[in-house]
Amino acid sequence: MGEMKRNVLIIGAGGVAQVVAHKCAQNNDLLGDIHIASRTVSKCEAIIASVREKGSLKVDGVLQAHAVNARDTAEVAALIRETGAQIVINVAQAFVNMPVLDACIETGVAYMDTAIHEDPEKVCEAPPWYGNYEWKRREAAAKAGVTAILGVGFDPGVVNAYAKLAIDDYVPEPASIDIVDINAGSHGRWFSTNFDPEINFREFTGTVYSWQNGGWQENRMFEVGKTWALPVVGEQKAYLTGHDEVHSLATNYPQADVRFWMGFGDHYINVFTVLKNLGLLSEKPVTTAEGLEVVPLKVVKAVLPDPSSLAPDYTGKTCIGTLVKGMKDGQPAEVFIYNVADHKEAYLEVGSQGISYTAGVPPVAAAMLIADGTWDVGAMKNVEELDPKPFLDILNRIGLPTCIRDAQGDRPLTF
Amino acid sequence: MGEMKRNVLIIGAGGVAQVVAHKCAQNNDLLGDIHIASRTVSKCEAIIASVREKGSLKVDGVLQAHAVNARDTAEVAALIRETGAQIVINVAQAFVNMPVLDACIETGVAYMDTAIHEDPEKVCEAPPWYGNYEWKRREAAAKAGVTAILGVGFDPGVVNAYAKLAIDDYVPEPASIDIVDINAGSHGRWFSTNFDPEINFREFTGTVYSWQNGGWQENRMFEVGKTWALPVVGEQKAYLTGHDEVHSLATNYPQADVRFWMGFGDHYINVFTVLKNLGLLSEKPVTTAEGLEVVPLKVVKAVLPDPSSLAPDYTGKTCIGTLVKGMKDGQPAEVFIYNVADHKEAYLEVGSQGISYTAGVPPVAAAMLIADGTWDVGAMKNVEELDPKPFLDILNRIGLPTCIRDAQGDRPLTF
Repeated sequence: MGEMKRNVLIIGAGGVAQVVAHKCAQNNDLLGDIHIASRTVSKCEAIIASVREKGSLKVDGVLQAHAVNARDTAEVAALIRETGAQIVINVAQAFVNMPVLDACIETGVAYMDTAIHEDPEKVCEAPPWYGNYEWKRREAAAKAGVTAILGVGFDPGVVNAYAKLAIDDYVPEPASIDIVDINAGSHGRWFSTNFDPEINFREFTGTVYSWQNGGWQENRMFEVGKTWALPVVGEQKAYLTGHDEVHSLATNYPQADVRFWMGFGDHYINVFTVLKNLGLLSEKPVTTAEGLEVVPLKVVKAVLPDPSSLAPDYTGKTCIGTLVKGMKDGQPAEVFIYNVADHKEAYLEVGSQGISYTAGVPPVAAAMLIADGTWDVGAMKNVEELDPKPFLDILNRIGLPTCIRDAQGDRPLTF
Repeated sequence: MGEMKRNVLIIGAGGVAQVVAHKCAQNNDLLGDIHIASRTVSKCEAIIASVREKGSLKVDGVLQAHAVNARDTAEVAALIRETGAQIVINVAQAFVNMPVLDACIETGVAYMDTAIHEDPEKVCEAPPWYGNYEWKRREAAAKAGVTAILGVGFDPGVVNAYAKLAIDDYVPEPASIDIVDINAGSHGRWFSTNFDPEINFREFTGTVYSWQNGGWQENRMFEVGKTWALPVVGEQKAYLTGHDEVHSLATNYPQADVRFWMGFGDHYINVFTVLKNLGLLSEKPVTTAEGLEVVPLKVVKAVLPDPSSLAPDYTGKTCIGTLVKGMKDGQPAEVFIYNVADHKEAYLEVGSQGISYTAGVPPVAAAMLIADGTWDVGAMKNVEELDPKPFLDILNRIGLPTCIRDAQGDRPLTF
């Protein structure tokens, strides 16, 4: 690589891409040129305008918008070559993971994403979900010497690093890994999802998979609820939910139960239940009386607020963390490693709400670790397969500090 | 007319049209040829098959299906001429009232409908609603000697006749006219509307108009609720609702308060509230992320059960009536005139559920009164402007018997 500097190509132009762009700009002395590409080039240009407006570029440098059809591997590969990008941060809809990953393998550049690939025709396939798509490219990535980091947002991503750290340092014999995601913020709208409604709702319409007693357990959404007492956000009800990281953590730590819990208010559950039971969350087309064929979920998305529009009014905090219970030195041990983020602070810094912020900052930390070589392993990895400390150390510095709560108390964690 | 016999053209092929066709067939010795026309001719053919299957035709006679675009006056007029129809029973979507009415005036045949004309672009216009459309043709109808009976379903329709009867015979100085519509039946689905969802929801998305203290009062839907103790169905919660008959009754009886109350369960209100607040009941097109322009309400309609599919499993009863309070001979007087219909009985007789049955039987009674000359007044009328007794007398015989509850007790009413 000669000089320790790598150009970045961001794929996608939603709320998370906005955060990624700002954070890359804030660290462009390490990362180099920044390119942003999406189907709609004007959305990339709006992000660039926001970066310039906030003066986020640390040093003078390239910051450029492109139009791309990310479902077309050849088109993405051509753009990688054209821009000289060495790290692709894919934060577009999860439908494009595989073509973008293939383009990275073809061109020999690093790849990362923040969610598992989804086939628009299918919802919640058989576990482990990574096995259906990404992991099938493991050999090809290794052969090409391509670093591909899967699911390196907050959850999946940082919570996987928390699990790895907890098991390495605090609970070497884990019996359970529970990831808890609470958004205690308020957007002030009657109803909104916090990210792309299409992706958000698809997460909850299928079977809820968890890994328990050495096997996959199936539940329905909102079937299993539990109240958690958490730092800062207090008592919060969360529900067993199917989620990406369960599928890699269960593969890497099959001896432990692996569960994901997401917080939902009664209002969200009610709206979701109505929409789902009416068939309005279906991704299968219906035909109107007038003969128009239309996917109900896409209409629901069209009437809901654009999640990025929530940012200016969003207040309150998120608390997302990993609780690991098990044994250490023959004694029961338990540790909760977590982050608390503030919606308002996120908006003031990068113009996005906290959910986008927590998802968008980690891939930039990962890009910095690829740029400086620390995580440039030339293979496909889930986050818990990499050293968590340099990652969490960067996150401490760039906006997502780690805390820990265990028998010794509740405190910030430094590395 | 020479012989007292009039051929009927039914416009529409939904659940109500099915009832109309069966009832016309049961009385085709008086009514003559029966023609059914709608955009989709196969739906008309299905109704005809049902009439033949149940052996509903009283005497041998014509029973024929036609395709028609009822929004096209010329096309409807041509069909009237082709079929030799003398009475048009319009039970299609309320969007086609005006072109069908115009075709009847043009060809000089009798017209009737069961709901106020609606402009698909507008929801709940300024009161009185009839004044926005139908009443503008009053002079033209009179000039052509055309009998046009507006809103002659159950409500509006029979309840207007109940109001007229109550005021004529029981409460000559009315202070209030409250129409109460309770469906205490159960369709067994998670959610369904009882008739066309598009029309059903449009009724409730606009301002709720009622006539009180000599003026129009405006409320929001579900803002004013009241529990009613009713015959057969017992205690039921109903809500002040905007409805057609308020607009003609308030014009004919401006001295009385005129209100319409519709029964809703909490579940219906919750689903309605979610859909409305999300914008899914809007008749204004939205554009999906993929660029498809689509009307949300039409998608909601597409995912909901077809109301006619509810009939086989529908159980329970409806109670719809008119409560008139006021003075008679210097004493307070109060009378509730009502009908109770049974979903299962309706299905066994005509293959439709009770809501369609109560809406579809009255226009056939009206057609019979036009055919025998009783109601063939050669002018445009709302139902309370006609003699209620022959109408209620026929309804007593053809499936919708009238009952009365007052200081003298609760009893069937005969004429």
